Amino acid sequence: MSGFALDPRLALDTQFVADGPLSQLRLMDDSRFAWLVLVPRVADASELIDLGADAQRLLLAEVNHAGNLLRACFPCDKLNFGALGNIVRQLHVHVLARTRDDAAWPGPVWGAGSAQRMAADAGARRLQLLREHLNAEFWRPG
Amino acid sequence: MSGFALDPRLALDTQFVADGPLSQLRLMDDSRFAWLVLVPRVADASELIDLGADAQRLLLAEVNHAGNLLRACFPCDKLNFGALGNIVRQLHVHVLARTRDDAAWPGPVWGAGSAQRMAADAGARRLQLLREHLNAEFWRPG
Repeated sequence: MSGFALDPRLALDTQFVADGPLSQLRLMDDSRFAWLVLVPRVADASELIDLGADAQRLLLAEVNHAGNLLRACFPCDKLNFGALGNIVRQLHVHVLARTRDDAAWPGPVWGAGSAQRMAADAGARRLQLLREHLNAEFWRPG
Repeated sequence: MSGFALDPRLALDTQFVADGPLSQLRLMDDSRFAWLVLVPRVADASELIDLGADAQRLLLAEVNHAGNLLRACFPCDKLNFGALGNIVRQLHVHVLARTRDDAAWPGPVWGAGSAQRMAADAGARRLQLLREHLNAEFWRPG
């Protein structure tokens, strides 16, 4: 996994939550949505299907854990998953808890208006809530 | 797998390409994008992470095959994957070959304008191209 470096745009837009077996779990800094991002710690990874089979299985496990974590923390009507990378090429997988009254429903969150940065205390509360519900056998809080 | 029925909206918007081990592979009827959709033949499936582990592994294999199939048929700059389901609840996974000059780049295709239905001959050509490149050991053309 040497050579991995987090893309500067992802570093700016997200906060570290925990490390999974493959990826960093990060919280998107946007108060409008309950939005996690998984970033595999694999140098130069861009396309999901170019990851090796073992890495893909780990990522799938992380997607499951992240989805269930959101459900546990934020009541929602639908989970959304996406891997786009048209702007930030570094491989990252979005995991979202959507609600019928959120700012983009029923559309996608990507490209929907501008991020509303969280106030420091609100961001800290979300991080604390997520960390309280993390499966400690799967995630390392760093 | 009994009890599966394709959602009427998906039936209207897509054409059958082939059956994978878990899912129907379908072509979105939108000339603007090279756009496949995987629909697991599982009754009442809605959330990706509520599929059983075996089904998830099959779906992951299908995602890989579908992405490589698009690459073989349509030169592209980036693959996009998404599972949203905010409008059509039936579980379906989008697999797209995006190009820098396509109608929605770099934004997502979901919610980007209106579908441009393919003329019958153009749709038939795309289906033929896809079927020529299908891995016949994996997909059954029905």
